[in-house]
Parts: sequence; C-alpha cells; structure tokens
Amino acid sequence: MYVILIYDVGVKRVAKMLKLCRQYLCWIQNSVFEGELSEVKLRELELRLNGIIDKNEDSVIIFSNQMGYHMSKEILGKERMSTDNFL
Amino acid sequence: MYVILIYDVGVKRVAKMLKLCRQYLCWIQNSVFEGELSEVKLRELELRLNGIIDKNEDSVIIFSNQMGYHMSKEILGKERMSTDNFL
Repeated sequence: MYVILIYDVGVKRVAKMLKLCRQYLCWIQNSVFEGELSEVKLRELELRLNGIIDKNEDSVIIFSNQMGYHMSKEILGKERMSTDNFL
Repeated sequence: MYVILIYDVGVKRVAKMLKLCRQYLCWIQNSVFEGELSEVKLRELELRLNGIIDKNEDSVIIFSNQMGYHMSKEILGKERMSTDNFL
C-alpha cells in the first residue's frame, strides 16, 4: 500500500514523531513521509503514533491507497530529501 | 486531476503561499492542501508558486495523478480542516 503521511504536532513531540515515522517511511520534507507499507505495518504505525500524539492538539494525516498505485511527485524549489534515507 | 500540495517555506513567505494555494485547493493542515485541478490550472498555480518561493531555501511538493483516483485519507488526533474552506 502506497502511503503519504503528514504530521503537525507540538514542538515537544516532533523528535519522537520523526524517529518513529522514519522506521516505516521515507522522510521527504519537514513532517512529510512517503513509502510502501503493508496493511498490518500501517496499523502498527498508527497505534504507535496514537501513543505519542496529543489528540487535542496534534494532527496526523495519512493518505493511502490499497491498489498500490503511486502519485506522481513534483518538487518546486529545494529538494529536502536527504540521501541518508537510503544508507 | 487529484492533487496534494505541501510546502515548507520561509516564515516571510507563508502568508502569500497560503493566500495563493487557497485560490486553487482546500487547506487541510498547516502547509497542506488537497483538491481537484485541471492540468492547465495546475501549471498556472506552479508558475505563480515559482514567483513566490526562494528556490534556494523553500520546498514545495506536489503529488498528483492524471487518472483522477483519490487517496483515502485518515486523520489521527485533531482535524484541522476549518469549515471556512467551504463558505
């Protein structure tokens, strides 16, 4: 399943969110991740995200599609994606 | 064409970016927009975005797919989408 994840969380929780999301997806821009996940892995990630966020303050949007087709991606300006995602 | 747009720009340019993107797409979270656009309108938006951003500092990611199929969207925590997008 193709997934795009975007979070908007309190400063105190950013480091934890970054660390967790990087275990599942590729970081492509501040608070933005992209990648392929199985249904089971996505549910696991959601459970762990729910254990970090403050549900009254934070927001996480998860775009996904079961059929696995990707969205084409265009970048204006600077590409943030650092190579360390691939090492 | 279904579009998801995410920007990460310098503080001085955020207001201009928000104002411009709202003319084309729905605001769903800080710096995140979603909606339907024709190819022509997307090119027009890109031209105007390129007129605002600092190409050495800012980054705009535009996900799109020609076939128009949508991604399913799940929100953890607080839904940021304000109703004034629909008024």
